[in-house]
Amino acid sequence: MYLSRVVAGPCAALSALIEAVGVVEAARAVRECALPQALRGPTRARREIDCAERDLTAMERMGGRVVTPDDPEWPAWRMLGLSRLDSGRDQDGGVPLVLWVRGPRSLLEASERALAVVGARCSTPYGDQVTADIVSDLAAQGWTIVSGAAYGIDAMAHRAALAARTPTIAVLACGVDRPYPAEHERLLAEIADIGLVVSEYAPGVTARKHQFLARNRLIAGLADGVLVVEAGLRSGARNTVKWARRLGRPALAVPGSVNSAASIGCHRMIRDGEALLVTRSEEVIEETGPLSLPGTTTDPQDGLTGDDATVYAALPKSEPRQPAELSTHTGLPLPAVRASLVSLELAELVANSENGWHRTPSKRFASSRREPGHARRI
Amino acid sequence: MYLSRVVAGPCAALSALIEAVGVVEAARAVRECALPQALRGPTRARREIDCAERDLTAMERMGGRVVTPDDPEWPAWRMLGLSRLDSGRDQDGGVPLVLWVRGPRSLLEASERALAVVGARCSTPYGDQVTADIVSDLAAQGWTIVSGAAYGIDAMAHRAALAARTPTIAVLACGVDRPYPAEHERLLAEIADIGLVVSEYAPGVTARKHQFLARNRLIAGLADGVLVVEAGLRSGARNTVKWARRLGRPALAVPGSVNSAASIGCHRMIRDGEALLVTRSEEVIEETGPLSLPGTTTDPQDGLTGDDATVYAALPKSEPRQPAELSTHTGLPLPAVRASLVSLELAELVANSENGWHRTPSKRFASSRREPGHARRI
Repeated sequence: MYLSRVVAGPCAALSALIEAVGVVEAARAVRECALPQALRGPTRARREIDCAERDLTAMERMGGRVVTPDDPEWPAWRMLGLSRLDSGRDQDGGVPLVLWVRGPRSLLEASERALAVVGARCSTPYGDQVTADIVSDLAAQGWTIVSGAAYGIDAMAHRAALAARTPTIAVLACGVDRPYPAEHERLLAEIADIGLVVSEYAPGVTARKHQFLARNRLIAGLADGVLVVEAGLRSGARNTVKWARRLGRPALAVPGSVNSAASIGCHRMIRDGEALLVTRSEEVIEETGPLSLPGTTTDPQDGLTGDDATVYAALPKSEPRQPAELSTHTGLPLPAVRASLVSLELAELVANSENGWHRTPSKRFASSRREPGHARRI
Repeated sequence: MYLSRVVAGPCAALSALIEAVGVVEAARAVRECALPQALRGPTRARREIDCAERDLTAMERMGGRVVTPDDPEWPAWRMLGLSRLDSGRDQDGGVPLVLWVRGPRSLLEASERALAVVGARCSTPYGDQVTADIVSDLAAQGWTIVSGAAYGIDAMAHRAALAARTPTIAVLACGVDRPYPAEHERLLAEIADIGLVVSEYAPGVTARKHQFLARNRLIAGLADGVLVVEAGLRSGARNTVKWARRLGRPALAVPGSVNSAASIGCHRMIRDGEALLVTRSEEVIEETGPLSLPGTTTDPQDGLTGDDATVYAALPKSEPRQPAELSTHTGLPLPAVRASLVSLELAELVANSENGWHRTPSKRFASSRREPGHARRI
């Protein structure tokens, strides 16, 4: 909590230090300024502010909590992609140090099958209606809706999810105690009542422009895919889409009238191959649902080590298994099983379906999945 | 003319015979039924009907003519693609034997820079308006509009072209003396007055279903690309798009409301990578027009204002800078510099790396043409 407040957002150098020496030692080093050059700048302004106790009390008072990477509630497999981003290229990337969370749900469980729905602050009635339609359909099938609580499409996505009593997660660019925008105080309170309000910023931190970009990576990171319903030419939604693509998650956009300024960004992203065109919930699920990727022709277990090898070996060749079953079978804790499954999924060795996780078939089988990143430009 | 009436449409076997022995000898062989097996079936029904003289008189009476491959007006380079289609795969493919033509223009010249605009018979006011807008813009730049004179988008495309006094070509699936649909008698007369009405079917031939499919290849063949403005799920426009792709010409589609049945076909084609999404005439020309070579870059600074322009100008062409350096250099406060960098990043004019922020390489240089046929599916 102390370090989270000091760096206020992602800090690759600090994450590396924690990785190397552990969090307690890292905190001591920051307090005493016994730091490598790269960490002096980012910690200088706030390293004297040590109010972890007060923050914890404040969080508890509002029914919140702090979720750390050691916590069983930590969505480890979701964060795996963030940890693999090239930290040189993505300065705002990286795994958050902690997540400040309000709401009655487990973050891990709520983000298990989730779609991020984002878009124009100045949405149109058309965009609002399409958002409500798609969110209602997904809600009926048990999907969680992740968004940023902004005006327009974001708010409509949360509201449609609340109306359908499906979990919804609002990821903020400020402390979870701050209603931002102020007009959404009641909306955020409702989300905190039955869903989750999440931020990597400590209580009291105000929203600044660059924090929105970092926040967008969490919106993309916590979901299986990003859907943009409407977006103007310079919409922030395009940034969330970029994160989705860097994380290897599908980016989807809804078309609209060519006369509507609120659809220009969507059309542009579809045209430039940054997002796939979708028109209804079935198509969203088709693109975002469980991956069915090919395996390898050589023995897929070659090169697997540690938990990954254990979990892979525990998966039968033809039957799916639930993470809980694998945990029982292997004796590994559930979060470790989940992390391994994601890692195996990224290696295209396993996939999940509604019946659970299963090994993928041989790589020779043609894949029908599309990659927006590779689309159209030759 | 005799052979054209006998086979009534494309006939790969007859084209091959003409290629081998010449058209006079081929006509003799058909008359005398001295034919290889493959040609007996296609010529049986009408080989006794020899009314070329009468057809020529009829064409002359209506101010028309017959254009043969030997004619200087024959659009040889347009027909080249058709001659290369795999005749086994594309039964309705192949070069027409002759074209029956009404109208004061040279077919060769009128089709030199042409866009085919096709779409739903049941168009909506939205589709009609977009058609009119795009056609007017293209007309102002000297493009010819090719279409099929059907209800809906086709008719609107012709009408907008007529209104702009740009050449327009109606390609029919029946004889050019037959108004089809009958309600378009006056429209077709107007097109014949200042544009061209074209068919590969002899005068008097009525429209039959399979002839529309063959006709569609000529619509695609006579143009630089095919634009579908609206299309239902089973629209014939999809067939024209298929021809365009087989001929290696761009296929374009306009998006619309996801609630509109008249846009379902367009969305499907974009989604399946069969057509590129376009929203306005500039994009149509970008995809369909002559390739734009590097060196035609516009200055990326154009259109930047305020702090964004200041910050962008302060960034050297090849070296990265830290926000603090930019703040010192420009005299802008650090938060303003950061805000501008984010805004410039969203506009893809700058990017950041571990060494700081730098200008992105000029976008136009990287631009290459897209191929819808290769789109998205991997």
